[in-house]
Amino acid sequence: MSARGRFISLEGGEGVGKSTQLDALRHALEGRGLQVVTTREPGGSPGAEAIRDLLLKGDEARWNPRAEALLFAAARSDHIQKTIVPALQQGQWVISDRFLDSSLAYQGEAGGLGIEAVRDLHRFGSLDFLPDRTLILTLEVGEAAARARVRDGSAGDRIGSRPPSYHAAVDAGFRTMAAKEPGRVRLVDAEGSPATVTARLLYALGDLLP
Amino acid sequence: MSARGRFISLEGGEGVGKSTQLDALRHALEGRGLQVVTTREPGGSPGAEAIRDLLLKGDEARWNPRAEALLFAAARSDHIQKTIVPALQQGQWVISDRFLDSSLAYQGEAGGLGIEAVRDLHRFGSLDFLPDRTLILTLEVGEAAARARVRDGSAGDRIGSRPPSYHAAVDAGFRTMAAKEPGRVRLVDAEGSPATVTARLLYALGDLLP
Ligand SMILES: Nc1ncnc2c1ncn2[C@@H]1O[C@H](COP(=O)(O)OP(=O)(O)O)[C@@H](O)[C@H]1O
Ligand SMILES: Nc1ncnc2c1ncn2[C@@H]1O[C@H](COP(=O)(O)OP(=O)(O)O)[C@@H](O)[C@H]1O
Ligand SMILES: [Mg+2]
Ligand SMILES: [Mg+2]
Repeated sequence: MSARGRFISLEGGEGVGKSTQLDALRHALEGRGLQVVTTREPGGSPGAEAIRDLLLKGDEARWNPRAEALLFAAARSDHIQKTIVPALQQGQWVISDRFLDSSLAYQGEAGGLGIEAVRDLHRFGSLDFLPDRTLILTLEVGEAAARARVRDGSAGDRIGSRPPSYHAAVDAGFRTMAAKEPGRVRLVDAEGSPATVTARLLYALGDLLP
Repeated sequence: MSARGRFISLEGGEGVGKSTQLDALRHALEGRGLQVVTTREPGGSPGAEAIRDLLLKGDEARWNPRAEALLFAAARSDHIQKTIVPALQQGQWVISDRFLDSSLAYQGEAGGLGIEAVRDLHRFGSLDFLPDRTLILTLEVGEAAARARVRDGSAGDRIGSRPPSYHAAVDAGFRTMAAKEPGRVRLVDAEGSPATVTARLLYALGDLLP
């Protein structure tokens, strides 16, 4: 491989269509001749997947918000080191289903720890390693919840099952990140058919594509 | 119970006699009519013990130094919240076999992350919650290693089995902490019989004892 690959993160609340678009984007990029690796957070490497189990199982009181944020930062450090950076160095493109901005929105904004405090953990844990582009799928919260209900039937994991007010604050956190870092972060409308959304995502990647 | 209990941490390198003195100190304090809880790090609560497993098993490359420091901070946050603070609130004395100063010495000083960076993680994760007294057992590194060898036969866990230069830097880190915070942290000579060492520890707790 010649050049370093690109690192794209897909973000947004539960049910907006991240996992659906992860696959669609992989196919679209492969169709342009790129080698693509898809991954996810929390997790994405053996160590980080072990931490994922600790984070998502158990009841709400299992971890206090600060311990939870530290676990996410530890998992992300391992994910970057063991999975993302090696793939990029081989010239592959990496797309992650959630990444840093989920921590900033969930733990920082909705969880009340503050976006800057959570970003500091990323500075410590991963030397502020950032995606080349972060695509945040936006959808009216009720519609995202309806999509997730169709998919799951009933309730989700330890974090997905938090109340609507929490998920509204998550949404606000994502919008804050897009306003703060317009070069890296783009909001993408997740309304409409999957193919329509994929076209919008590719448009938001236009300047990075070969 | 009437007053809040006191929180004592026992620190020092592998083999200096921490676990031996933890028991001796518990007996001595119980002999003075105190209710005593002993605990340990990493671990000391169900969540933190799960993190301990992640930290101590596997090979050296399992976690990079930054992920390792984040995991210690997450475990400590849980340990304080679930075990230490509730016991203190019930008027019990708590003695922990290792605590924050081990992270400062091992990850901060010997691991090269810097004492201040690791202390910042504790500020974030546990709002800088500190022991009433930290007792650091000091012993010539070769003698501590000899005691540990007598105890274990062969090599220790993922961290204990690091090279002598690492453990010498740990020792330096502990001494730095004693110099920085002379009110909280005391160096105690671990040479001599267990009973001699216990007497020195009780002397270093004199101002806190009822
Ligand atoms: N554009 C879309 N329109 C309608 N339903 C969709 C759309 N994209 C995804 N879905 C469906 O909505 C549900 C949630 O999508 P998913 O990709 O799992 O979201 P996320 O990974 O963000 O939680 C799934 O059942 C999926 O098939
Ligand atoms: N004062 C002492 N003199 C000689 N041996 C000791 C003394 N204190 C402890 N030991 C022995 O040294 C070994 C290490 O002690 P231990 O309490 O397990 O250390 P640590 O918990 O600091 O690793 C054990 O076999 C213990 O019985
Ligand atoms: Mg998904
Ligand atoms: Mg011990």
